[in-house]
Amino acid sequence: MFQQIKQKNPLVHCITNHVVSNFQANGLLAIGASPIMGEAPEEAAELAALAQAVSLNMGTLHTESLKSMLIAGKTASKLGIPVVLDPVGAGASNFRIKAVREILETVDVSVLRCNAGELAAVAGKDWQSKGVDAGEGTLDVKELAISTAKQLGLLVVVTGKIDIVTDGRSVIEIPFGDPIMASITGTGCLLSSVVAAGLAVESGNPLKIVSDILRFYAIAGEQASQTAILPGDFQVAFINRLASLTDSEVAERIYSQERVL
Amino acid sequence: MFQQIKQKNPLVHCITNHVVSNFQANGLLAIGASPIMGEAPEEAAELAALAQAVSLNMGTLHTESLKSMLIAGKTASKLGIPVVLDPVGAGASNFRIKAVREILETVDVSVLRCNAGELAAVAGKDWQSKGVDAGEGTLDVKELAISTAKQLGLLVVVTGKIDIVTDGRSVIEIPFGDPIMASITGTGCLLSSVVAAGLAVESGNPLKIVSDILRFYAIAGEQASQTAILPGDFQVAFINRLASLTDSEVAERIYSQERVL
Amino acid sequence: MFQQIKQKNPLVHCITNHVVSNFQANGLLAIGASPIMGEAPEEAAELAALAQAVSLNMGTLHTESLKSMLIAGKTASKLGIPVVLDPVGAGASNFRIKAVREILETVDVSVLRCNAGELAAVAGKDWQSKGVDAGEGTLDVKELAISTAKQLGLLVVVTGKIDIVTDGRSVIEIPFGDPIMASITGTGCLLSSVVAAGLAVESGNPLKIVSDILRFYAIAGEQASQTAILPGDFQVAFINRLASLTDSEVAERIYSQERVL
Repeated sequence: MFQQIKQKNPLVHCITNHVVSNFQANGLLAIGASPIMGEAPEEAAELAALAQAVSLNMGTLHTESLKSMLIAGKTASKLGIPVVLDPVGAGASNFRIKAVREILETVDVSVLRCNAGELAAVAGKDWQSKGVDAGEGTLDVKELAISTAKQLGLLVVVTGKIDIVTDGRSVIEIPFGDPIMASITGTGCLLSSVVAAGLAVESGNPLKIVSDILRFYAIAGEQASQTAILPGDFQVAFINRLASLTDSEVAERIYSQERVL
Repeated sequence: MFQQIKQKNPLVHCITNHVVSNFQANGLLAIGASPIMGEAPEEAAELAALAQAVSLNMGTLHTESLKSMLIAGKTASKLGIPVVLDPVGAGASNFRIKAVREILETVDVSVLRCNAGELAAVAGKDWQSKGVDAGEGTLDVKELAISTAKQLGLLVVVTGKIDIVTDGRSVIEIPFGDPIMASITGTGCLLSSVVAAGLAVESGNPLKIVSDILRFYAIAGEQASQTAILPGDFQVAFINRLASLTDSEVAERIYSQERVL
Repeated sequence: MFQQIKQKNPLVHCITNHVVSNFQANGLLAIGASPIMGEAPEEAAELAALAQAVSLNMGTLHTESLKSMLIAGKTASKLGIPVVLDPVGAGASNFRIKAVREILETVDVSVLRCNAGELAAVAGKDWQSKGVDAGEGTLDVKELAISTAKQLGLLVVVTGKIDIVTDGRSVIEIPFGDPIMASITGTGCLLSSVVAAGLAVESGNPLKIVSDILRFYAIAGEQASQTAILPGDFQVAFINRLASLTDSEVAERIYSQERVL
């Protein structure tokens, strides 16, 4: 998979927030993809059409960038280019949740990548979100992911202790990763655009493609955490590991996990 | 204090500049706070109302973000949520100084966190500012901080070789820190939002709370500088140290300083 | 040269994209310059007039920042302040290429700093650009740089394996640097503003000034790459090396290269 990304070097059009844009661009470069991050409505259609995938992120959404997301998303839909939506802090404001709904209604979103609180907001369920963090709630996240995927007709990825991927029928759970991944900003945002890069280079079963990406990403995180236990170090080590982790190292780690289970 | 932040994990609504937003978010996460960085006027009231503190920073101010700052600030004032204002480059343009004045007139700002040049601009005094840097001048910064705090009815924090905190009556001087802290962008901006996080979790004497935060922050800086003497390393080491520095290490450092004095 | 920057500490007004703004600010601080990054049209003229150089970068251009670039650029032109233009992704959209043309027509740009794909777009030639990356083409880049410099009456800097600087008459080729410099986002953007900082402190032959800067920058990159072979490490090491590399180390490296040639 990641061998493919390195070979094909897909262009990913990211309309994303300024908090994570540097980290997201460097993470995409690390795995061998090319980010382009224009966000003016005037160029949204052209940039989306140039790209092999579109990644939309609402972290510092405003009226103009929402306009661009809709244009880029619709262009991508028309051209069959995969779109990943990251509804950052969807439950934090009416502005955000209305934006998510508008995007979901008008764009053919391939993957909704979120945390549990954002999923609850998208699904219209009560949840104690904490700003842009997952927060706490009593919902059965897996069930909600399945019903949301079914209802919206897309893949839902919910990251947390265990990552979940579902197309509304099957569910895959990914047991890798490390809590330190949540100690820096942008690991979720970057993951969304890495998913976009994966969809750009692989065709076939999207559930398999996306779960492969999640495994790779979570394993990169846990391996980076082995030498970097503080967040400043981790930010650096994670980019390093995204650049250096090989498909065979991933396979080996999955194999050792399966032996444990 | 910082034990408190880690336990209560306060949500800090930051409307800040894109130059430092990643560093500021990671610094807040490092001390155990949760940043949310929305800046659309449409959601400014909701985000401020969700938060336990609001941090306003004018580094890359524009008309829309100013609108958001005014809405978020007024909402916070109404709800008794502390607001910290960082008037980045206040003296560099009429747009900035007018924005500072408008915010100070309409928002109940708890703390003005600035450098000497910015203080002079806010107070309407001549000063050779250097863009967003402190620059040089001949004013008695301590006196100006006191009179400004008195006049505006808020805490003034002026950072520099010696940090100053004053409520217009008492003044506390903080002798910690290291010049390398000024060699990377955003240490002042991050400090402002760390002050906001401190005010979010502690009630009682604001002068004490804020001076405790300044000591912690400056000591984190000087300790990070012990192993990181170049700016790339320092940016990483400082985030590490913010995450790992304990209240007792801070107490020990203050004690050793007092013995020296 | 860089001794000069450290002594004179020039203020560089950067209107730049949010993907690289932190890296660009820290890089400018590392070499001893002071960045100011305001981008509101309301303050563009004042900030440009305060500065010793202006650096315009189109990475996440939008209508408002284009307005600011035109105001800042015209102000600088009137005052004889050098302007460097970085036409990021010029070929990726009509919005960008029209913006480049408008800036070039109305602003007295001193240096156009770009990659081969962006040069082709500016010159109106066919080229397989890849988003904001150089991409591939069959043009003679050196010839195109010369003719573009002549036609526009400015210095053209094209970075790549070999960096090229030309004023339309003479051409200087810089053989230093390392491919890892392209593995993180922003090395080109930062270079453009470093060129601006150099022009701010030196008068005399611009071709010599700019080629000196390019050598310094490329040598900092190759030296950082000696200890940092992964992109996370390289981003940190490069800022370190920009801060620590001395004019005499540069001279020594150039001398050893010349002996090889």
